[in-house]
Order: sequence, then structure tokens, then C-alpha cells
Amino acid sequence: MKRIAVLTTGGDAPGMNAAIRAVVRYGIFKKLEVMGVFRGWWGLINEELKLLDHRSVSGIINQGGTILKTARCPEFFEEEGQRRAFATIQKNAIDGLVVIGGNGSFKAAHVFGTKYNVPCIGVPASIDNDINGIDTTIGSDTAINTALGAIDNVRDTATSMERIFVVEVMGRDCGFIALAVALAGGCEEVIIPEKKFDLQAICHDIVHANIRGKVSWIIVVAEGAGSAEDIAKKITETTNLETRPIVLGHVQRGGRPTALSRDLALRLATEAVDCLLRGERDLAVGFCCYKTTVIDFETAIKKKELNVEKFYTLLKQVT
Amino acid sequence: MKRIAVLTTGGDAPGMNAAIRAVVRYGIFKKLEVMGVFRGWWGLINEELKLLDHRSVSGIINQGGTILKTARCPEFFEEEGQRRAFATIQKNAIDGLVVIGGNGSFKAAHVFGTKYNVPCIGVPASIDNDINGIDTTIGSDTAINTALGAIDNVRDTATSMERIFVVEVMGRDCGFIALAVALAGGCEEVIIPEKKFDLQAICHDIVHANIRGKVSWIIVVAEGAGSAEDIAKKITETTNLETRPIVLGHVQRGGRPTALSRDLALRLATEAVDCLLRGERDLAVGFCCYKTTVIDFETAIKKKELNVEKFYTLLKQVT
Amino acid sequence: MKRIAVLTTGGDAPGMNAAIRAVVRYGIFKKLEVMGVFRGWWGLINEELKLLDHRSVSGIINQGGTILKTARCPEFFEEEGQRRAFATIQKNAIDGLVVIGGNGSFKAAHVFGTKYNVPCIGVPASIDNDINGIDTTIGSDTAINTALGAIDNVRDTATSMERIFVVEVMGRDCGFIALAVALAGGCEEVIIPEKKFDLQAICHDIVHANIRGKVSWIIVVAEGAGSAEDIAKKITETTNLETRPIVLGHVQRGGRPTALSRDLALRLATEAVDCLLRGERDLAVGFCCYKTTVIDFETAIKKKELNVEKFYTLLKQVT
Amino acid sequence: MKRIAVLTTGGDAPGMNAAIRAVVRYGIFKKLEVMGVFRGWWGLINEELKLLDHRSVSGIINQGGTILKTARCPEFFEEEGQRRAFATIQKNAIDGLVVIGGNGSFKAAHVFGTKYNVPCIGVPASIDNDINGIDTTIGSDTAINTALGAIDNVRDTATSMERIFVVEVMGRDCGFIALAVALAGGCEEVIIPEKKFDLQAICHDIVHANIRGKVSWIIVVAEGAGSAEDIAKKITETTNLETRPIVLGHVQRGGRPTALSRDLALRLATEAVDCLLRGERDLAVGFCCYKTTVIDFETAIKKKELNVEKFYTLLKQVT
Repeated sequence: MKRIAVLTTGGDAPGMNAAIRAVVRYGIFKKLEVMGVFRGWWGLINEELKLLDHRSVSGIINQGGTILKTARCPEFFEEEGQRRAFATIQKNAIDGLVVIGGNGSFKAAHVFGTKYNVPCIGVPASIDNDINGIDTTIGSDTAINTALGAIDNVRDTATSMERIFVVEVMGRDCGFIALAVALAGGCEEVIIPEKKFDLQAICHDIVHANIRGKVSWIIVVAEGAGSAEDIAKKITETTNLETRPIVLGHVQRGGRPTALSRDLALRLATEAVDCLLRGERDLAVGFCCYKTTVIDFETAIKKKELNVEKFYTLLKQVT
Repeated sequence: MKRIAVLTTGGDAPGMNAAIRAVVRYGIFKKLEVMGVFRGWWGLINEELKLLDHRSVSGIINQGGTILKTARCPEFFEEEGQRRAFATIQKNAIDGLVVIGGNGSFKAAHVFGTKYNVPCIGVPASIDNDINGIDTTIGSDTAINTALGAIDNVRDTATSMERIFVVEVMGRDCGFIALAVALAGGCEEVIIPEKKFDLQAICHDIVHANIRGKVSWIIVVAEGAGSAEDIAKKITETTNLETRPIVLGHVQRGGRPTALSRDLALRLATEAVDCLLRGERDLAVGFCCYKTTVIDFETAIKKKELNVEKFYTLLKQVT
Repeated sequence: MKRIAVLTTGGDAPGMNAAIRAVVRYGIFKKLEVMGVFRGWWGLINEELKLLDHRSVSGIINQGGTILKTARCPEFFEEEGQRRAFATIQKNAIDGLVVIGGNGSFKAAHVFGTKYNVPCIGVPASIDNDINGIDTTIGSDTAINTALGAIDNVRDTATSMERIFVVEVMGRDCGFIALAVALAGGCEEVIIPEKKFDLQAICHDIVHANIRGKVSWIIVVAEGAGSAEDIAKKITETTNLETRPIVLGHVQRGGRPTALSRDLALRLATEAVDCLLRGERDLAVGFCCYKTTVIDFETAIKKKELNVEKFYTLLKQVT
Repeated sequence: MKRIAVLTTGGDAPGMNAAIRAVVRYGIFKKLEVMGVFRGWWGLINEELKLLDHRSVSGIINQGGTILKTARCPEFFEEEGQRRAFATIQKNAIDGLVVIGGNGSFKAAHVFGTKYNVPCIGVPASIDNDINGIDTTIGSDTAINTALGAIDNVRDTATSMERIFVVEVMGRDCGFIALAVALAGGCEEVIIPEKKFDLQAICHDIVHANIRGKVSWIIVVAEGAGSAEDIAKKITETTNLETRPIVLGHVQRGGRPTALSRDLALRLATEAVDCLLRGERDLAVGFCCYKTTVIDFETAIKKKELNVEKFYTLLKQVT
């Protein structure tokens, strides 16, 4: 193994740059050449890549986003796209590929790596924490803290104005961010895709609590479970209490990565390089039980189960 | 003058607590008794108030929101409500009132103070910075920095994914926050109520820039000038480029006040107490040219003019 | 079990308030009465405690410090102090004690609980992460992120002015914070108690790198391994390059707890109450492999081993 | 005027990059060529400079430090150094110079510009806010907010552990940061160079307050007025109460610039370019009474007077 390439795909996540830095520097330390591919699979297809040296990744460890950029690439789902991507790999004598991204990125890497016999190692970076078989992903902790900061701010107004807020957070079809933020934010209710919710029951709770004197509520809703705007409207209609929606959106994707997101980036990216050096392929590195580990792509891309009941129960017990 | 009261009304703003603290402690230093009225005018009408001592305002200088709470109070617009409020003032022997709030709060204080002969001094606290005749309000700097933090985060994704974002910020019918955030955030465009905008021209600029290679845009829109969702939808339709809306909402109202918001709170709140002690009434304190000043309520509640053209031009010149 | 008490001892850690809140609310949910003891053991000795209700812990989940306060208490090391503490427990019919604190707190709880037959459960809260047998403590993640923010700031100047900085971080005789911060901050060197360091070798590296053009360095030093001032002075003398010391000190103890610190607080505090309800005693709850667990006090208070070599090697490989 | 150059000198300040960006982009908008000089005067002497285009300043508006770097340059105080600097200016056909920096930078620009007939305009960027004749400098607001964040953190521990802290902040021989931070942080005492202080009186206050039950103090000390370590030691000796020193140091220099620091950077940098275009020279731009203005260098470099008594009195009245 003489030369590897690294790319970032899917939605950007804070810590991707720290992971790129670690792949490049650790690769160089291990006597490898490391190429950076721009805009994910698109860059492979269009041969947009270049050699990265030690200095090229200076000063990025604390930056959100990804210096290699990321993009959607429908061409890569087609035969022709994959063929061109493989041609780039051959032409540039790339012996292995580090794919930094989420669930969708791993699916693509699994298909491509298997079909064209390219050693691919996935590094899980996604704010959604939706990779099966591992505890957490690069960027997840940062996104949760960003959303939590927003919740803390909203709490000031909720308490001062005695109002109800519905805050929509990211996470696609996964309620992880919502649940984590609701627990850490001391929120009164959380609505997630993994659990059926009964808006009438929530409204009943609100009215009931209101009579006892509890007048401010923050309800966190995962984007996959509903829209803050719809839910706020329905609560207002049912309870006759002023309810405001907030949609944090892509604010949760950016920003300085937290210590944990950078720490993961460092450990997992270096482990990915080690995997390639050991001749491994078609698997993702991960962090499980405070240790780096590897899981095959097929496991990683399965739907992740969340211990929803336990934490939802906990939320209601301490609210 | 032996006893004064303080209340917060309108939307909460970061630094209100620092202002309450300063009124209470400075009042006590000046041998006054200070009563805190809960939930703004509502508390006057319903006689919800209590004496505040030195310790009662400990540990709040760095907290967002307001410990006195704030509320809408339609009853105060009616004769009966005002009469009851005045009864509370008489019953509790309150010689003067410090009203911490924004434009609407000052209007109410002007009407009430004049009609019932109650010395009222306004302390401008509003994230919207919409008080005429003064440079800035308590809370404005904090809200701008909060929105700017969100913009900085969005920039990470805008650059990494090469996308267009429309970020809606607060400010009611005032474009101050939007303009300040767009300039400090290095945003490509800003849409504010004070300036007619031409969405087709903006779309033309986007497409034109896209051809030259500039693919990420952040467009800030003041809530009074349009909805991020509508604008994003229209840009997508016209340019065929993916455009995402973000609505920061009440996140901008809360959080730790900045140094400037706290500094203003301290200066203006103590000046308000001094005004009452000097026998002044029916006016607002303000900060102008780095000095505290006073302006009559009638001036303060006029529509504030913003030097829009100058700053909009500046934005386009450095983008 | 009808009534339990909770206290915080040792140095304060961000998340202690979230833990107090969880003990109180979860306890009440489980039909217990919960008393809060002020100033740690001192409050037991001097009978400074009171019943805490649901509302008494509102609005503290996101506050640093501890509303129950904490204090050193040499009297508790003596027979007389312990006897008086036990008298308070008997007099107030306290059936179990939740002790939120670090290593020293657990030692005291172990001695006291065993001798006077008081069921004590420890909840690990310490920025130093020095509890043996568990992965992390409440507050540790917050302190690391605070220190990391400082390092990121210093990096701006280090790069702009091309200077050498020595940053002293907390951690007593444990290098955990230093190592974590150095890795996540992309620092060039770290000096920790767990590893002998050779200042001459470091100076040699600095001079050598300087010749190659690398002119800015950040060296993190754990307080237990040396003083930033001394080390900076020696580097200046040896290399003739300007080197500045920074001592972050107690800034690392305070501030809004991170999501992780609050999440831990919630899980561990409720687990501690469950332990008491199950009749368990003389042990600490902990978080290990992303699960709550229990460990006996004797294990918890042993010197924690850190996998120093692995992470130090990693640091040098990616620098 | 066809070509101008920009450099940053003295200590770095947050917002310098925003100022560089504005000089470059506004200059280009005005049909000028803009060269960036590296490491301040050193770069002029050693001809380290290059043309900057529009893209070269992308993504830096929110970054601390300075991409042009800054350095001490004793050679520039000598005839020979200045001659070589002037040679660079002639050789590169530079028609005007924008000097971003503080008091010392302006002195050097004044001497050099006058002697060699080079149009120099100063842009005040310094965390110390020590430029005479203007209200505030680029970076000052950021540094104050950074120090304030540290004070807020320390307050958590001060309150929880009931201790005394002495926090040393920057500002050279100017007490501006210290005073601003003490007021906004709700600190009990501030020690600044502009006012004689009596440590025995402070100790007396502490002991006296301690008897009344006030046990936590935060004393802010400007670096020009004393050392936190010495003062803490003396307080401990005199009062027998545990007192801890904290030295924030260069942490205050870095970090994301606040909205105000970026806003100033934008306004002042563009004004500086306008000054050169209007044929002005030997002066600094500034911000006074919420408007941009110009002051001659001789005024700017005079010792700035601070209205110390007023604000110190205010501090004591609300503590």
C-alpha cells in the first residue's frame, strides 16, 4: 500500500476536518501518500483530487464543515459513474479509500468497494448518530450541544414569557438528537419517530399543568416525527395557549467541533488508515465502549435501534 | 421620593436582569425602597409585586430573560385596567416607576404616566433596537451576536455543500438585526423592510455568480420583510438551485447577555433612578454617542430611521 | 426507605446541579422525601439541610456550580465531626445518602457509611475524571471543552505572532484533561504526571522545527506535572525563543455543563436513587461502556490508570 | 492611486482578519490593487508581500488572529530598516499603506510616513482600547466578552465554594478591559493602573463583609496594576481566607470576533481606503459617537484618559 485517498460525503458534520487532518498526517507518518478527493464521489468521477501534504491540513482541526467539500452525486448510483470513479482510482494508483460520512456514504462505499475490488474503510461522521453497531459518530456530540445551546436560550424566554415552544431539531428518521437534547435541556416533552405520540394527550397534560401553575413548556420534535409549525398550530388550537415553533435547521450542522467530536475523529481516522495497512476492507471503524472497533458495512448500515422507552420514561420521571 | 417600582414588559431581552439588579441595588444605595412588579402591567393591575432587597438580585447579572417575568396585557389598554394599576401604585405608596422594555412599553408608560400623574422613566430593552433617538438598546448586541453565531455555523455547511441558505432573523418591522448580521457574517445578500427588494434580480445575481464558480450564498431576511420559507422556495423555483430556509426565532431572545448589553443595563438603569430622584418623568434614558442621555417618550416611540442605503451599499461592495 | 439526603462535596463540577435536580425529582417520583445538605459534610455536622421540593430545583439544569454549595471540612476527618454528622442523620430520619463528588468525597463516604452504617451511594462528579473503574465523570467533558476553547483562542495568537505558549490546565495528579485537550487542540506537546518528560528534548524539537519553518507551538502542561511559568522560562532560556505561560485555573470548573455532563448527571443520579431503593450501599454508580454500572467504593478510589503511551504516541504521530 | 498595501502589526486582535478582508475587497471594488505585507514592518523590510485577490480573503471574516501575521520588528526603529522598507514600497509601486494595529503601530506609521512621504492611514485594532480620541478599537469588545465569559465561569465556583478569586486581565497600562469586565461581571472590586489602590482597605472590606455573611469575592486586576498571584497571596496572608489567582493571558487575544469587532473592522477599513483615495495621510480612522471619523496620528497616540472615577463609583454602588 503506497497511496490512499480520502473523501467526505453526505451531509457535513463537525469534526470531518479533524478526521481529514488525522488521515493525512497519520498516513504520511506511515509512509503513505494521501490524496484528497473533492466533493465526495463526484470528485472521483470527475477526477478532482490532489496530493495533500502535512501543511495542507494545518489549522483545520477546530473548523466545522469539510475542506474537501461534499456533494450529492446521483451519477454514482449508476454503472457509468462508478466506472469512471474506478478509472480515477486506477489512473492515480490509489490502493485504498477512506470514506468519511454517514449511513448513505457507507452503503455506496460497500457497493462500490465490493464491485470494483477497492479497499474501502468507512469513518462514521454524521450529526444524526445513525450508524448501527457503534455508540456515537463524529459530529453528533457537537450537533447536540449546538441544539442544547438553542434550547437553553429558548428556556429564558419560555420562563420569562410563560409560553409554550415547539423546537424542531435534526436527525432525519432518527430521534437521537431530539431525545438527547430534551433530556439535557430539561424539556417537558419530546416527539420522536421511534415512538407513537398522541398530541391530544400532550395537550391534556399542558392544560392540566397550566391549572396547577406550570405555564412554560418546551417540546422538542425530531424532524422525522413532524413539523414544529404543524404541532405548534395544533397545540394552540386545542389548548388556546400561545405556542411558537422554532426550526433550528442547518445551524446544527456547523460550528467548532467539541472535544469529543475531535477526539473521535482522531481515533477513528487513524484506525481507518491502520485497517487499510492491515489489508482490511469493506468495513467501518467505530467507537464502542470507549474503544475503537471495526464493524462490517452490512451491519453498520442497518437501521439503528434506540433504547427509546427507557429514556423517554426517564424524561417524564424527572420533569 | 421614598419608594419606586420596577417592571419588565414586552418581549424579553438579554440584559433585563442586569437592569433589574442595577435599579434595585442603586435604588437601595440611594436610600430608596424598590418594589419588583411581576409580569409587567399585569402585575400592577393584579397587585403582584414585592419588595426586593440586595440579595434578591444576586447571581442574575449574567442570566437571560427576566426574573420579574413579562406578559402581554390587553387589559392595560382599557380604562378599567389602568385604574386598577393606579390603585396598586397608590396603595403601595409607589412614588415612581422604572419601565424596562421596548417601543410598545414606552407608549403604554407615556399614556399611563401622563393620565395618572405617575412619574415613569423608560429603560430601553429590546432585541429589535427600535427605539428612536438612541444608538442601541439593552439586548440588541446579544441578539445580534447570537444570530451571528448561527450564521457562522451555517456558513460551514454553505461552503462545504455549496448551497444557498435563507436565514430569517428577528426584528419585527425593523431591519437592524438583519443588516448587522449580514455585514458581520459576510453574507451575500440581505432583505429588510426598509428597502424594496427584487427577488428576480437576486436570482439573476445568484445564477450569474454560479457560472463564475461562486456557489454558496447566505441571504439574511428580516422577519418583517418576508418569510425564509417563501423566499427559499421562490429561489429554488427560479434558479433550480437547492435553497434551504432557516428560522432562528426565539433562540435570539435568550442567552447570557454580552458585555455591551450588561454595560448598557447598568448605565441606563442607574440613570433612570437618578431621573426619578431629580423629579424627572415621562421620558426614556438612552445611550447616544457613548454617553447616557434622556429623550422624551414622544420622540422615543417614533419610527426609527435606519441609514439603510449606506450599509446595504457597503455590503455589496465587500461581498 | 422514606427519606434520603443529597450533598455535593469536593471541588465543584459542571453538572452537579443537574445531578441534584435528578436526585430530587426522581426521588419524589419514587415517593421519597429528599433533603438537600448545604456545604457538603459541613452541613451534616452543623445540621444545615432542608427538604427540597420539585420547584426548588427548577432552572438549574444548565447552571454550573452547585446550589447546595460545597466546602472543605477537616472536622469530618475526626471522630467528633463524624458523630455529629451521624446525629443529624438520625435526627432527620435520613435513610440513605447520595454523595455527589470526586475521589476524596468517596473516600469519606466509604469511611463514614461503613462506620455508622449509613447507606451511601457516590455519584462521580469531578472535572479531573479521576475515579477508577469508570469511563468518565460528570463535569469532565465540560472542563475539557472549556480548556479546549481557550487553546483554540491561543492558537490564533500563536499562529499570528509565531510564538510558543505553555498552557497549564487542571487535573491535579491526573493528566487526563491535559492529554484530551492536547489531542483535540492539535497541540504540539503535552506534559503529564504519568509520563517522564525531558525538557531538553522538547527544546531540541522546538529549535529543530524552527529551522524547518515551524515557529508556533502550544505545549499543554497538567498542573500535577509542572508549572507553566517555570517551563516557559526554561524554554525561553534554552531556545532563546519567546515563550509565554497561561494558567487557566478555575475558569475550567464553571460554566454551562455540556450535553454529555448533563446526560451523565441524569443517568447516574437516578441510578443512585435506585441503588438506595434496592438496599445497596457503599458503592458508586458510574458510566462504563455507554451503560450505567455500579462499582464498590474501594475500587473507585484506587488510582486510575491512564493509557498514556497510546495517546501520547498518537499525538506525536499526527502533529 | 493605483496600488495600496495593508499590514497588521503589534499584538493581534480579533477582527484584524475582517479588516484585511474589507481593505482588500473594498480596494478592489474601487479599482485598486491591494498587496498584503506579511509580519508587519518586518515584511516591508524583507519584501515579503503579495497581491491579494477577492478569493484570498474568503472565509476569514469570523477568524481570530491575522492571516498576514504580525511580528515585533526592532529593525524598523533604525534608519537602515526604514530605508529598506521604503525601498520595498518604491520597488512595488505602493501608493499608500493601511496600517492595522494599536498605539505602537501608529507611532511607527507616523514616523515612517512623515519621513519618507508615504501616505499611511491607521486602522485601530487592539484589545487594549488604548487609542486616544476614539471610543473603541477593533478587538476590544471581543476581548472583553472573552474575559467576561471566564469571570462568569469563575463566579460559579466562587459562589459554590465561597471563595475569593483574583483574576488578572490584559490591557497593558490601561484599565479599560478590567473596568468593563468588573462592571459587566458583577465583580466586587477592580484594581487598575489609573487609580491608586489600598490593599489593606480591600482586605478590611472582605473581612467586614465576611462577618455579614458575604463570603465570595471576585477581584479583577489589570495586568498593569499588579499581579494576581501577588495580590492573592497578600489577601490570604492578611485575611486568612483562601484566595486564588487566575491569569487569563493570551486567551483574551484570540477567538471569533464579536459582531461589534467585525462591524468596526468593516467600517474603519473601508474608511481607511477612502482616506487614501481622497489623498489623506498621517492619520487614523476611528469610531466616535457611532460614526466613523478621522484623527491625526499625534492625537491618536497620546495617552488615553479613562473616566475612571465615575465607573469605579458605579461599581461600588451596585455591588
